[in-house]
Amino acid sequence: MKLATIRSACCNLRARASRPGGRFSGISRGCVPVATSSSRTIIRTASSTPSSGTSRTLTANFGKQRKEDGWSECNRSVGEVVGNTKEAIAAIQRRNPEIHPMLVILQAGEDDSVLEINKKIAGEIGLKTTQICLAKSCSEDETVEELLRLNDDPSVHGVFLHLPSTSLTSRVLSTLKPEKDIDGITDLNIGRLVRGDTSKGFVPPKASAVLELLRNHDAPLKGKSVLLVGGQGSLRLAMQCLIERSGMIVQTADWNSKSLKTQVMQANAVVTLSAGSVDIPPSWARPEAVIIHCESALEPGDDIDLSSSSGLGYLTAAYRAQNVVQSCRRWLQEQQYRPWHLHSLKLQPLNPVPTDIEISRAQKPKPVDQLAEEIGLLPEELEAYGRNKAKVRLSLLDRLNSQPDGKYVLVAGITPTPLGEGKSTVTIGLVQALTAHLKLNSFACLRQPSQGPTFGVKGGAAGGGYAQVIPMEEFNLHLTGDIHAITAANNLVAAAIDARMLHEATQSDKALFNRLVPSLNGVRKFSPIQISRLQRLGINKTDPASLTPHEVSSFVRLDLDPSKITWHRVVDTNDRFLRKITVGQATTEKGQIRETGFDIAVASEIMAILALADSLKDMKDRLARMVVGTSRSGEPVTAEDLGVSGALAVLMKDAIKPTLMQTLEGTPVFVHAGPFANIAHGNSSVLADKLALKLVRKDGYVVTEAGFGADIGMEKFFNIKCRASGLRPNVVVLVATVRALKMHGGGPNVSAGAPLPKEYIDENLSLVASGCRSNLKKQIQIAHLFGVPVVVALNAFRTDTQAEIDLVCQIARECGASDAVPCQHWSQGGRGSLQLAKAVKEAASRPANFQFLYNTEMPILEKIRTIAQKVYGAEDIELSPEARSKIDYYNQQGYGSLPICMAKTHLSLSHMPDKKGAPTGFVLPIRDVRASIGAGFIYPLVGTMSTMPGLPTRPCFYDIDLDPVTEEISGLF
Amino acid sequence: MKLATIRSACCNLRARASRPGGRFSGISRGCVPVATSSSRTIIRTASSTPSSGTSRTLTANFGKQRKEDGWSECNRSVGEVVGNTKEAIAAIQRRNPEIHPMLVILQAGEDDSVLEINKKIAGEIGLKTTQICLAKSCSEDETVEELLRLNDDPSVHGVFLHLPSTSLTSRVLSTLKPEKDIDGITDLNIGRLVRGDTSKGFVPPKASAVLELLRNHDAPLKGKSVLLVGGQGSLRLAMQCLIERSGMIVQTADWNSKSLKTQVMQANAVVTLSAGSVDIPPSWARPEAVIIHCESALEPGDDIDLSSSSGLGYLTAAYRAQNVVQSCRRWLQEQQYRPWHLHSLKLQPLNPVPTDIEISRAQKPKPVDQLAEEIGLLPEELEAYGRNKAKVRLSLLDRLNSQPDGKYVLVAGITPTPLGEGKSTVTIGLVQALTAHLKLNSFACLRQPSQGPTFGVKGGAAGGGYAQVIPMEEFNLHLTGDIHAITAANNLVAAAIDARMLHEATQSDKALFNRLVPSLNGVRKFSPIQISRLQRLGINKTDPASLTPHEVSSFVRLDLDPSKITWHRVVDTNDRFLRKITVGQATTEKGQIRETGFDIAVASEIMAILALADSLKDMKDRLARMVVGTSRSGEPVTAEDLGVSGALAVLMKDAIKPTLMQTLEGTPVFVHAGPFANIAHGNSSVLADKLALKLVRKDGYVVTEAGFGADIGMEKFFNIKCRASGLRPNVVVLVATVRALKMHGGGPNVSAGAPLPKEYIDENLSLVASGCRSNLKKQIQIAHLFGVPVVVALNAFRTDTQAEIDLVCQIARECGASDAVPCQHWSQGGRGSLQLAKAVKEAASRPANFQFLYNTEMPILEKIRTIAQKVYGAEDIELSPEARSKIDYYNQQGYGSLPICMAKTHLSLSHMPDKKGAPTGFVLPIRDVRASIGAGFIYPLVGTMSTMPGLPTRPCFYDIDLDPVTEEISGLF
Repeated sequence: MKLATIRSACCNLRARASRPGGRFSGISRGCVPVATSSSRTIIRTASSTPSSGTSRTLTANFGKQRKEDGWSECNRSVGEVVGNTKEAIAAIQRRNPEIHPMLVILQAGEDDSVLEINKKIAGEIGLKTTQICLAKSCSEDETVEELLRLNDDPSVHGVFLHLPSTSLTSRVLSTLKPEKDIDGITDLNIGRLVRGDTSKGFVPPKASAVLELLRNHDAPLKGKSVLLVGGQGSLRLAMQCLIERSGMIVQTADWNSKSLKTQVMQANAVVTLSAGSVDIPPSWARPEAVIIHCESALEPGDDIDLSSSSGLGYLTAAYRAQNVVQSCRRWLQEQQYRPWHLHSLKLQPLNPVPTDIEISRAQKPKPVDQLAEEIGLLPEELEAYGRNKAKVRLSLLDRLNSQPDGKYVLVAGITPTPLGEGKSTVTIGLVQALTAHLKLNSFACLRQPSQGPTFGVKGGAAGGGYAQVIPMEEFNLHLTGDIHAITAANNLVAAAIDARMLHEATQSDKALFNRLVPSLNGVRKFSPIQISRLQRLGINKTDPASLTPHEVSSFVRLDLDPSKITWHRVVDTNDRFLRKITVGQATTEKGQIRETGFDIAVASEIMAILALADSLKDMKDRLARMVVGTSRSGEPVTAEDLGVSGALAVLMKDAIKPTLMQTLEGTPVFVHAGPFANIAHGNSSVLADKLALKLVRKDGYVVTEAGFGADIGMEKFFNIKCRASGLRPNVVVLVATVRALKMHGGGPNVSAGAPLPKEYIDENLSLVASGCRSNLKKQIQIAHLFGVPVVVALNAFRTDTQAEIDLVCQIARECGASDAVPCQHWSQGGRGSLQLAKAVKEAASRPANFQFLYNTEMPILEKIRTIAQKVYGAEDIELSPEARSKIDYYNQQGYGSLPICMAKTHLSLSHMPDKKGAPTGFVLPIRDVRASIGAGFIYPLVGTMSTMPGLPTRPCFYDIDLDPVTEEISGLF
Repeated sequence: MKLATIRSACCNLRARASRPGGRFSGISRGCVPVATSSSRTIIRTASSTPSSGTSRTLTANFGKQRKEDGWSECNRSVGEVVGNTKEAIAAIQRRNPEIHPMLVILQAGEDDSVLEINKKIAGEIGLKTTQICLAKSCSEDETVEELLRLNDDPSVHGVFLHLPSTSLTSRVLSTLKPEKDIDGITDLNIGRLVRGDTSKGFVPPKASAVLELLRNHDAPLKGKSVLLVGGQGSLRLAMQCLIERSGMIVQTADWNSKSLKTQVMQANAVVTLSAGSVDIPPSWARPEAVIIHCESALEPGDDIDLSSSSGLGYLTAAYRAQNVVQSCRRWLQEQQYRPWHLHSLKLQPLNPVPTDIEISRAQKPKPVDQLAEEIGLLPEELEAYGRNKAKVRLSLLDRLNSQPDGKYVLVAGITPTPLGEGKSTVTIGLVQALTAHLKLNSFACLRQPSQGPTFGVKGGAAGGGYAQVIPMEEFNLHLTGDIHAITAANNLVAAAIDARMLHEATQSDKALFNRLVPSLNGVRKFSPIQISRLQRLGINKTDPASLTPHEVSSFVRLDLDPSKITWHRVVDTNDRFLRKITVGQATTEKGQIRETGFDIAVASEIMAILALADSLKDMKDRLARMVVGTSRSGEPVTAEDLGVSGALAVLMKDAIKPTLMQTLEGTPVFVHAGPFANIAHGNSSVLADKLALKLVRKDGYVVTEAGFGADIGMEKFFNIKCRASGLRPNVVVLVATVRALKMHGGGPNVSAGAPLPKEYIDENLSLVASGCRSNLKKQIQIAHLFGVPVVVALNAFRTDTQAEIDLVCQIARECGASDAVPCQHWSQGGRGSLQLAKAVKEAASRPANFQFLYNTEMPILEKIRTIAQKVYGAEDIELSPEARSKIDYYNQQGYGSLPICMAKTHLSLSHMPDKKGAPTGFVLPIRDVRASIGAGFIYPLVGTMSTMPGLPTRPCFYDIDLDPVTEEISGLF
């Protein structure tokens, strides 16, 4: 990805040359102009590999330096800096063959001797150099525009502003990125130098050169006095600082100073910084003193005699080149994985615990760009959406390609009560504990919640109490628009289906063909997407005129069977009246009515695709493969057949990037994708997990969550998601509550809205024990089927007694859990999950032996039976005739080797929601079998699955309000 | 808005005090701690208005200074600085009574004398001071955390880091915002000082103090030598720079220097910067020389004798306070309107003109934060959505409240052909010309296009050719999610309607009441939204138990008449099969089926509300007022009755902020709202216009566009939008094309997809003349009805001849246009619209006499008749019985004084699309009358309006594709 950027940047520069309107201002001294625009010329100096011959020529030059000024040192110094810098470039290129350190010279007018010297040295070193020659009269605006371009160009590592000093205005200087200011002239770099911080800025090359000459003087100057004569501003101050830091004593003198002679006589070394009104005769100086004149070559445009006093010029140029290479090295280092410097947010939990929105609002999140920087993201990898959330570009995967992955932790749960047992809060509490308290890098990867239920019954899904993603209202509403994009893409397919059926019903083959392949300016051409369809039809032609009438007919007619359209429209609202509808009743639709329905947006196959895709290309291919229905002759019809797959990819191009947010304690969270856990696989995205695993690094943790109980969410996580991603989990955290365990142990019914029976409030060890020995034990065994160690996290409630808690932990360990611990994240945040974090760390350090439950090459029926028997504990399965014929059809269409995504109730291990504990001896009925070909799975239906929730009599929205002055939301949860 | 922020920031600080877990580390010297947390204590020093008495006390102190060190000067200097700074604060507060310059002292441990002095001076001056006492052992992280908080707090103007020098790490220093670094110790500020740029940084107070003493020395020191002894780092360098810039000559000496005595003897002034190993006896110095010791008070923690050498300490403290006030003044200046420094992007138009997407992609937009800064937005007013677009906060309106508005220009068109005549390109070309070429501030305010047609027939709406908004794909797809938010809000209302009808149909009054007003922990309460409903019902009770059975019944039953529900669902897709549908057919809906339909999302009343709202509160009120249907007893039922209005406001809270983008030439554009131009008013948002009018300033221009021909879009712009906003237009630009004029002159039919007849390609002056004298003339007259001058913009095509162009311009002027000019923005960008820009500037300089066409208090019928006769040229109107009874109903409901929003074809001035030119003598039939009560208008229907477009046989999406490697979109337009 980086490489592509660099190349395209070069191309951009070149491209401008071919634009009309540019003009070339003649450049004579051996440079080849490659691009010109109205006021600038770009010249590239070839960075030919230096030969030792050239080196000698350069060396020979130095022999002519003036002995008396100490120039004899120059020869050796230049040679050394050149040699070191050459070696540094070679070292860079050994590890990054595609990287060439590049110096850009921004100059006014033509080359002068300073530039000649710099180019010569750059050529010697093998430094890539580009000259941009602005017109002498160019405006500040033009200079700034050029600088902005150079700032942005990642292939440019240093900019030498060889402009008249009047052009170096405050605006110009503050525009240049300090990272590319290899002459050390920006305010920030001067400040760094003055303060003595050399880790980031650059020492002005001329100052380095002078210092080098002083350091190499025959008589050591340490503790001796150096007189700086003339000069002013930052260069003189830089020199003064550097010389003093080298242990010499600096005196300064003005050219007009009456005591100049005395001062010179007392000095051990004299450095003249500007041309003076008088000459300093060598006789003034002490016999052993060195006099360095660096007034020359200070101003561009001066002509210098190459054979005389330009030794300092060469040394300066060599240090400049060295700075460019240093800048390149720093840039490369920036690209590398950076250890986290995470600044966690402090929590001061209150008791009693306030509402979720109150807790969320009381904590001010870090700006998302700060969080991103802390976890090693580069600014260009981030696309902010307001202050609190940002999308992260997938180019990160290329950049950190060689970085080893962190540990991969899945949070699953026992079979829950209808109230839910807190998997999300456990997930968030765990990363808060790992990162903010144990100081171990960790990332939570969460599903984006549907907006529909937010206004219905359930409330938000950002965790709860002191384990939340903040700001929770942004998490729950719109986020970065991914579900909106899915809705748009899904419904475009639906509109395309019905419109196509109407047009096919009302037009002849010829009319359809003329419209589908219109003649534009007399030319008729298939679009690429149409050629794909022809190829699927076995028609290998590209000339529309060459199709036979039969071929035309099969090309233009998808011939969809209205009764076999499986594609539904979606809406991200709990709108029960759209479950079954009749469309096409307006007269304009000419009687083409049919029954269909809307699902909630997260039930769209496109959501499942988003969650499973591992690149933009993979997503695009899956979108194209989606089957929307069957033709009257029984052939599957895909999104690509409808001609809409490119448009779908366009609609989804931003949705594929995960969204970065943070927990209450300022630790990072990815929110990405949220497929339905019954008819789809119910896990967040593969891409978010992959990005996070790179970011946390080898010893870090990525914690993700699977929807529903472990029998559903975890099984699908392993068999579908891990199969798609190639990632291997290290630990399963199994969330249990005393409440749910009591239910499985034989406690009375638990239902939303009704008060909890007293069995759930008072201590009842026998119910707890019995629940542990049935459901908890079975769920642990399921995880062990896959070879992954289990840590049981008991999400502790206020009503749990210590004896109950201890009992759960004890039995869990007996059942084979690596460990079992209570957690208090809800009331205490990460501190309340410390025990869990430690247990997870311990379990993750053990070798895991991950294996799939079934081989996808097994027949569909066998795969279903394996899951039913091994995971659910069924005796066998029983297929309806419809299910059986569908399986035959899928086999015949070549879909037989897809994995299985069971659509089953989450309220029991069996298909019967009221069978708690660990039922056995039942036969699992398969009512129907469907397929999501784009997402890539077959989903057998066990019972009826609602894909569209409804609104109760008093939906949550009654309490939701917005204060128009403070913009604060109330009542959201 | 600013004020609110400031206040809340103070509250935050205080709020932390009430949290448990903090502890108070005793502070003894007269300060009141207001907040403590684990490692910090916050103290506020009261900024009582200083009395002159205090001043004398302070003055008296100085009398005790050591005469021989020149301290006698101190008295006067401190007095002066204190006096000036007091006056500066007073000046600030005269203009901004709510602003108090505030210094925060970040200290380690308890107060020392330095702090005593600073607090004394601050008290004297009336500077607000807050001390944050970190534990002596506090970590770098804690310091950084505190600094980040202070950086963000707009009420803090300066931070004095009174910490041990070991705590002033690179990280700490680089964290402090340079804008608040009133001690001038950050790298950037040091760099600025060294370079001599004093416009932004701060001079270290101690350096100022020393300089002041040197300047005030009895014997002028200009040209004399000042010896700096000891010290190091940035403070010494700062002093050296400043002293040299004051015309003195600086010498430096080390304490160990053997020549120290000689140097002291030669110096005219001696400044000791650090405590030395030797003492400099006064006898060394020349008789007239001044010796300043500033080594004391350099390190926090030292105890200084207040009565002796602390004069410099006082002076330093005074300069520090002065810097705080300067920082506050700069901050206030930042808040002020700033003139634009717009950096326009260069265009090099190609010939032939490439496709829109190619042109868009070839131009790299400026980062949106750069654009925002250029046009005077503050960083905190911006919410970036990726790199190229950002939402702008409405707080801007408060900040620039006193700023006069710019000129307000409306772009409208003559009656168009079905191909459209280029209003958007004219709008964009005009702002490109005004801003990039005439250097006059200007803003284009555009509608956000519906995504549906993007994939249907029409393609994008970002302009075209060299007059576009870029990146055009982001403009056309998703943008910042406003239409998605509208869809979500609209459909939540729909779901609430049907669910409510189902629940009412299946439950008793009592059951409904129990569910709507549930008992929570034994307490039953109405929500605020329910109390509103009770009040509308005339029930002034707040205790649920007190309602009579009859009151309960009228409260719980909206009793919606299914046949009178006017609310439709919406989707942002061209989905013709949803025009008329039956919902509720699933068995779960218990037979409550009914016919309804979907509109395209932009046809939602919520979109019209977004466009007309002028604040968050106004939007919320309008959303609550929306009428969704009628009860069986004939009462209107509102969104508030459904209990959903707060949730709607929450869903729309980000959508209300306009989105900032840019044109191809880098000039600013607001994209905001895009209501349907037939059933709604078809104009972009009031808020975007208001923000833009403030930003462009008095002599700038805001150019906005009205949908359809001037008879529809412009009429609604004046009568509805301007009425809602209170804004008054200065100029109308009327867009015409030779093509449309020929059509009005009697040319053959023009239709999309068919080739243009030759009349439109060859010169035909008589058709042109006849079109000008009919439609163009009439449209000019319509604008003049409102008293606004008209400039005709002839959007020139390649086939237009010079004679045709000249003829149009000539007749336009004859018809009363202020001017008429051709424009070539499509092929040339802003340069091609220069003539238009000049004509608009000229017309805007004339006084406009804006007036509404009708008074809203006129009866509905009369308002409709006025528009029909005066604008359309109808003889009269004719109402269907349905229309008549609706008008009666609206009158009875009190909606009679709403303005009128005509729903009429845009293809003719009449209701008959094929009547071109300027038809007369017709009677306008009013088929039906509807109302958008939330948006605030009555809309009579003239003919049938489709609110849901369809997809053609070969929709645009066939050509749309995404390259998965480069992420480039192709075929979009």
